[in-house]
Amino acid sequence: MSETPKQPKMRTSIATSDATSITIRDQDLVDDLIGKVGFTEMIYRHLAGRYPAPGQARVLDACLVTLMEHGITPSSLIARLMIDSTPDQLQVAVSSGLNAVGNVFVGTMEGCGVILQAASKSDDPAAYLDRAIAEHRDSRTPLPGFGHPFHKPDDPRTPRLLELVYEVGLSGRYCDLLRQMNRQVDAAFGKHLTINATGATAALLLEAGLQPDIFRGIAVISRSAGLVTHIQEERRHPTARRIWQLVEEHTEFVPE
Amino acid sequence: MSETPKQPKMRTSIATSDATSITIRDQDLVDDLIGKVGFTEMIYRHLAGRYPAPGQARVLDACLVTLMEHGITPSSLIARLMIDSTPDQLQVAVSSGLNAVGNVFVGTMEGCGVILQAASKSDDPAAYLDRAIAEHRDSRTPLPGFGHPFHKPDDPRTPRLLELVYEVGLSGRYCDLLRQMNRQVDAAFGKHLTINATGATAALLLEAGLQPDIFRGIAVISRSAGLVTHIQEERRHPTARRIWQLVEEHTEFVPE
Amino acid sequence: MSETPKQPKMRTSIATSDATSITIRDQDLVDDLIGKVGFTEMIYRHLAGRYPAPGQARVLDACLVTLMEHGITPSSLIARLMIDSTPDQLQVAVSSGLNAVGNVFVGTMEGCGVILQAASKSDDPAAYLDRAIAEHRDSRTPLPGFGHPFHKPDDPRTPRLLELVYEVGLSGRYCDLLRQMNRQVDAAFGKHLTINATGATAALLLEAGLQPDIFRGIAVISRSAGLVTHIQEERRHPTARRIWQLVEEHTEFVPE
Amino acid sequence: MSETPKQPKMRTSIATSDATSITIRDQDLVDDLIGKVGFTEMIYRHLAGRYPAPGQARVLDACLVTLMEHGITPSSLIARLMIDSTPDQLQVAVSSGLNAVGNVFVGTMEGCGVILQAASKSDDPAAYLDRAIAEHRDSRTPLPGFGHPFHKPDDPRTPRLLELVYEVGLSGRYCDLLRQMNRQVDAAFGKHLTINATGATAALLLEAGLQPDIFRGIAVISRSAGLVTHIQEERRHPTARRIWQLVEEHTEFVPE
Repeated sequence: MSETPKQPKMRTSIATSDATSITIRDQDLVDDLIGKVGFTEMIYRHLAGRYPAPGQARVLDACLVTLMEHGITPSSLIARLMIDSTPDQLQVAVSSGLNAVGNVFVGTMEGCGVILQAASKSDDPAAYLDRAIAEHRDSRTPLPGFGHPFHKPDDPRTPRLLELVYEVGLSGRYCDLLRQMNRQVDAAFGKHLTINATGATAALLLEAGLQPDIFRGIAVISRSAGLVTHIQEERRHPTARRIWQLVEEHTEFVPE
Repeated sequence: MSETPKQPKMRTSIATSDATSITIRDQDLVDDLIGKVGFTEMIYRHLAGRYPAPGQARVLDACLVTLMEHGITPSSLIARLMIDSTPDQLQVAVSSGLNAVGNVFVGTMEGCGVILQAASKSDDPAAYLDRAIAEHRDSRTPLPGFGHPFHKPDDPRTPRLLELVYEVGLSGRYCDLLRQMNRQVDAAFGKHLTINATGATAALLLEAGLQPDIFRGIAVISRSAGLVTHIQEERRHPTARRIWQLVEEHTEFVPE
Repeated sequence: MSETPKQPKMRTSIATSDATSITIRDQDLVDDLIGKVGFTEMIYRHLAGRYPAPGQARVLDACLVTLMEHGITPSSLIARLMIDSTPDQLQVAVSSGLNAVGNVFVGTMEGCGVILQAASKSDDPAAYLDRAIAEHRDSRTPLPGFGHPFHKPDDPRTPRLLELVYEVGLSGRYCDLLRQMNRQVDAAFGKHLTINATGATAALLLEAGLQPDIFRGIAVISRSAGLVTHIQEERRHPTARRIWQLVEEHTEFVPE
Repeated sequence: MSETPKQPKMRTSIATSDATSITIRDQDLVDDLIGKVGFTEMIYRHLAGRYPAPGQARVLDACLVTLMEHGITPSSLIARLMIDSTPDQLQVAVSSGLNAVGNVFVGTMEGCGVILQAASKSDDPAAYLDRAIAEHRDSRTPLPGFGHPFHKPDDPRTPRLLELVYEVGLSGRYCDLLRQMNRQVDAAFGKHLTINATGATAALLLEAGLQPDIFRGIAVISRSAGLVTHIQEERRHPTARRIWQLVEEHTEFVPE
């Protein structure tokens, strides 16, 4: 490949450092951030481009706390199997588990956020939602933010998450839209579907001023903490070999 | 593999759920945690087995804030290259970057924590530290928590991190030990080596009551947030193709 | 979760073992495979459900050889950066690089294979292809298997790959279809688009009797070997720190 | 970071390309490799720096075939769980499984290779081996290449693998050393330990002229093919949800 003509430099606004200082965005890490800013505020500041109002920070905290743990899940099983294989590489066990935070298990957060955001910008939100609901129903694709395999008839997390928005003084605009959508969903499907936790967190993160394209990132940050917890427990009370054995005992080899 | 005799069940203390509730440790997610507990407190509660005192939470926040961002690093470069290859799999870009949070770049946190903890339990901490320092010097292995390629003569984060411990009313026992170790290091090597940020955070996390075997996990949680930030910026202002081109322009093919 | 009623065992047909033997599909690893079967034949046997005819094996070999190396690419850059961060975890450097073998860089193999297979089963292949081409053109989505950023006007690998099919005595049915599709593509776009290597390998793997849903797997196997090669070179002639430095020199920090 | 003075270019000897050609090492991909060179030969050529003699290629094939499949293992369990979570990202399911090909399950190949190579260069191989064996025994670290949890008293793969070396006309020097080591191991431990498959493949790869630092890479290439096979079976006969359910049924929640 031949030498290209001189191009402008790439740009970053996140961080830089020299021998004696570290600059994060428009602040000095040592003078302005350490000991003065919490981790949740720091996350918000980077992803929203500004510091949160207190209510926004509480709502983000609530989402991070809600998504962190759901006990035995594919991601925690994978992290546990992995730390048994790479005992001194904790980060690899976390990252292998995080790979499972994909379209099947948390992708619905972003999808639900996109629908709510588009509806709120639409001239006729109810009509917009009806069309979106019909498209999913007709193509038999799961409606993001609705339904749950175990939590029936209703996901217990949802009422508390939606309530919190009003409690901390945010507008409630997206929560109202989500409730309205729930009524339209029930009518369109002819049965009750619960707003699940990913639907509720999508509404909350919109209330907090965050954009849907980064919602999966919030789940990833939160779940990384959950996986560290599972790895710690796995080291103290190992299960990986037993899981392997269990699967072997319940599997039959049928040559082909 | 033949059927094994009935074994006791595996045990977990992290979380469980049924149709109408989610239990996290000894609390109800909906009634006790959402809206009431911050993400940092939740992380601490899982990793330490109890909720933090206010000073402990502030110290953990300071570590999470300190480790989150250091601008262009191998992990952020990898996450940026990856999101260009798997644009709709944000979690894969984060996890690929996290794989780099290994023995070379943050493993020293755990190593430094182990030395400080052992010294503090020893009858003669100074003698213990002298032996540990001599072993590393003699085997020419880097002394965990000391030295930095760019931040010379001193890592600017360290004084602020250590100071914070006293500010929030923790004992300062491990920070004192780390300062003492620094003096012994300088004497043993015949020159000044800085306490770097991983050394300082190791002392802080010990002050906060956390165990060294989970220190890398703290870095992983923190850095996962940093990588989400880089991915967001990469999507808005792409650099991956330019980085690829840069490397090609600066590489010569020499057949062999 | 309550105890579920007794279910039938899960089934696998891949492999099993006991204290004295290892069974792979319907053969004994020691008696039937080691020293008697090549790696390429073994891969084919698993993925196709039978051993290959000689021409099928040569065609699979050609695809594996073609996809293995393309010099500096996102996946090889990532593997090189990673082995610098986790020097003793070669498998993590390979796996991080493999994550990049996704929809952007090799996913077109499967997409092109699906189109060719459907066209060949259609009553009117030319009409089917015209519709598929028009859909991609109208939605401005890249047509899988066509076009290349650097190899213009034609990808040099394609003629040789297609020719090989006839050379080894396979039917050439899918290669003929791909050439026909190329003519229809050029007509529909009003300019020449090359059949790229992923398009050609898609046709070859169909000729060899493999199914499109596993084409990406062929690329993954092949590229894993390429990445091991890059890791070996990186260890002998390191570039990772230089790449990092290069990017820093060409990046400007603009606070925001 | 300030502009550094002009440095020489980085160098690669693996591959390069321009608009009309692709060069791999000192050969043209299209003219010299496609259809003429098998995948195993290509792997060898890259990792050894030359093409294999026929016996060397057969031995490498035997190792790749031996390591490819061992049925239900941590790596195949992880790949199966992952493809259920990221159904359209086959490469992520493979890479997550490959992360488990680490120090616990195949790292012994490299370790055994290092010992055999050093012994063969030593003036007194038997004495060298005795020291290496004693060190492992005294520090209670597993001796790489020896012992197997299920294959007792002997790993069935080992005799066939070692025999193959003589069959294809290689020197047998490292196989002889490994057998000698086995006798010394049995004497030192006072009981019989089997040479396991990783020990035998280590000897074979040395016979083939490959270096220990790349042995894990051979396992990674081979296992990547095995994992693609498991993913194909998982898609046709899903087990991931059942595995998840099994673990839940066999786990008790004990709050703490």
